[in-house]
Amino acid sequence: MTDFAATKAMFDLPNGTIYLDGNSLGPLPRAAAERVSGMMTHEWGQMLITGWNKAGWMGLPTGLGDRIGRLIGAEPGTIVTGDTLSIKVYQAVASALELCPDRKVVLSDNGNFPSDLYMVDGLLRSLGSEYELRVVAPEDVAENITKDVAVLMLTEVDYRSGRIHDMKALTEQAHANGTITVWDLAHSAGAIPVELSSCKADFAVGCSYKYLNGGPGAPAFIYVAPRHADRVRPALSGWLGHEAPFTFDLDYRPGQGIERMRVGTPPIIQMTALSAAMDIWDMANIKDVRAKSIELTELFISGVEATCPNLKLASPRDPAQRGSQVSFRFADGYAAIQALIARGVIGDFRAPDIMRFGFTPLYIDEQDVNGAVDILADIMTNRLWDAPEYKVRQRVT
Amino acid sequence: MTDFAATKAMFDLPNGTIYLDGNSLGPLPRAAAERVSGMMTHEWGQMLITGWNKAGWMGLPTGLGDRIGRLIGAEPGTIVTGDTLSIKVYQAVASALELCPDRKVVLSDNGNFPSDLYMVDGLLRSLGSEYELRVVAPEDVAENITKDVAVLMLTEVDYRSGRIHDMKALTEQAHANGTITVWDLAHSAGAIPVELSSCKADFAVGCSYKYLNGGPGAPAFIYVAPRHADRVRPALSGWLGHEAPFTFDLDYRPGQGIERMRVGTPPIIQMTALSAAMDIWDMANIKDVRAKSIELTELFISGVEATCPNLKLASPRDPAQRGSQVSFRFADGYAAIQALIARGVIGDFRAPDIMRFGFTPLYIDEQDVNGAVDILADIMTNRLWDAPEYKVRQRVT
Repeated sequence: MTDFAATKAMFDLPNGTIYLDGNSLGPLPRAAAERVSGMMTHEWGQMLITGWNKAGWMGLPTGLGDRIGRLIGAEPGTIVTGDTLSIKVYQAVASALELCPDRKVVLSDNGNFPSDLYMVDGLLRSLGSEYELRVVAPEDVAENITKDVAVLMLTEVDYRSGRIHDMKALTEQAHANGTITVWDLAHSAGAIPVELSSCKADFAVGCSYKYLNGGPGAPAFIYVAPRHADRVRPALSGWLGHEAPFTFDLDYRPGQGIERMRVGTPPIIQMTALSAAMDIWDMANIKDVRAKSIELTELFISGVEATCPNLKLASPRDPAQRGSQVSFRFADGYAAIQALIARGVIGDFRAPDIMRFGFTPLYIDEQDVNGAVDILADIMTNRLWDAPEYKVRQRVT
Repeated sequence: MTDFAATKAMFDLPNGTIYLDGNSLGPLPRAAAERVSGMMTHEWGQMLITGWNKAGWMGLPTGLGDRIGRLIGAEPGTIVTGDTLSIKVYQAVASALELCPDRKVVLSDNGNFPSDLYMVDGLLRSLGSEYELRVVAPEDVAENITKDVAVLMLTEVDYRSGRIHDMKALTEQAHANGTITVWDLAHSAGAIPVELSSCKADFAVGCSYKYLNGGPGAPAFIYVAPRHADRVRPALSGWLGHEAPFTFDLDYRPGQGIERMRVGTPPIIQMTALSAAMDIWDMANIKDVRAKSIELTELFISGVEATCPNLKLASPRDPAQRGSQVSFRFADGYAAIQALIARGVIGDFRAPDIMRFGFTPLYIDEQDVNGAVDILADIMTNRLWDAPEYKVRQRVT
């Protein structure tokens, strides 16, 4: 059994804060700052350029990939980290389209994270006007996997509601139809068990700054099924994906397997922080995390529904259909989230009216959930959100 | 006048090392580890998700862009940092092609860094078979700017020889021909004065881990001339380049000006390290850096030529034609570089036979250059490179 008191002790959480936004940015692993400082001082500072070999920097993208892979049911050697999730979406969909040259449609849903849609829109514009991004409602995805669909691109866990797509069933249906799948695991990796290999997923992508706790702007990752890895030619063909980057050939030759999904020089400082975060994941079993996450979300829903009748559950009520977050609809949700933050309960707001709370068993426990419910009940019962200072939306620039 | 003793004191250089590879990876700014550790502990650790606004993370990509812009003659608000250089090359060339829809040729030279060619090759493959990447010898670029050339993509300073392209003349010629320019400043930014604005450059890209000293995997940057910035539609259309990222619209609308060249979530830890590095640049005048760099490279060339007759200068002899590096050809250059590193002089090797040395006045002085010449002379005169341990090439994996 995972010792959640032990994992909680590995994080540096501010006093007086109940942090229910680890689904957006995970908190600081206690060891991360020292790890990074040591890497900077002893590796960058002392080894200088030789750190790429001596300190193993060049192997970090695949080394971290394997560590993430353990949480999402991927075979060793099938994941590489680097870039941002948007870039990895682009790589995955471009590669998937090359496997289906006779079809021109990418199917997704309107619960997908917008950046995934934007990136594919940009990709398809460059490929030509015969390509189409078809966006349907999440519940209509299955019936829209038609013979013209080259690629099914879905985010497994909806970023607003937490609704889980059935990866196994949809992948099977896609394959029966000759469609390639691209799964975005942004809200899955570290939140719920994922079985990429046994689901026969084709491509998957995700980020490491949410449930994995890699820090702001931590690198993304991409998975390519072994059966495709040596066939695809990456759209973003950078030198570190070349078969022999340091021969500096003028012609591109893709590297072996997943190595070809590397692009440019990897962000070693960010990867060092992520490495400290993954050490905590080595203490955890993802099935235990899922069981505990369901306990916490059930406790939160029942507590909120008992005390805050104005909040309407926006997440699936069945925990099997729900990721590790709970969302409620409230017309003044923005102000309510600001009022919560002022009281030390950090959740977030997603337009137009979603109050979103993430439950991350590595460092959130029942006491935190009960505390958050009490504060939210006080804010709602006494309309504490109805104050001018909570209504002015800060522009994020 | 720039006080180079003062700038040198700002770096943490290992004892007994003469570091002539700052053109590949700049050394550790003395303040960087503490700056990053502080950001991680006080911002990430304490502010958590609110750091994006409270700590100003969201503004780092353009804030750092402006600081870099000061060194390369760019107007404020024309540069954004993020991603890797390969990704920014892709963005720039894709955007440039959209400004010349009737032409299908990208012209470059075979002295360009291979990744730039690989990325454009990948881009053009996706655009269709009517597109062509035309690669000529560096000295033949001018005569090949023909009426079918949409985009001229050049690295200003050759990564192997240090040869400088004439940005002003080639840009003028390109514009007279209706061709858009993309300049890669990887070996220019922080090495030589660049005047993007007065040269009327269209696009420029670069990295920050070489002369700018941002650390391994530090973010890249992209410049878009103000006359184009609101016209181009970025090929990599990520959410942070959207006009209003946090409204989570399903449709992409490009942001204002250079903001649209942002893609995904920026690497804040790397950017914090870069920020410490840019503080040192605030102490320097790039013209002083250039003058001192010429003194150092002249001193090195004359010293090596006087003592090492087997080494053939591979860089332009005229310092006005040469960047801040000096390269020599030697058939056993790989072994000779290993022998140098074993003696504490760090340069690097570029296939097939280039021994490359970077001269970075912020932390390299005459004494370092004389010391490096003495050691190199000893190694060459006494054939110290001719030892088995220096000939086994380490595989970089």
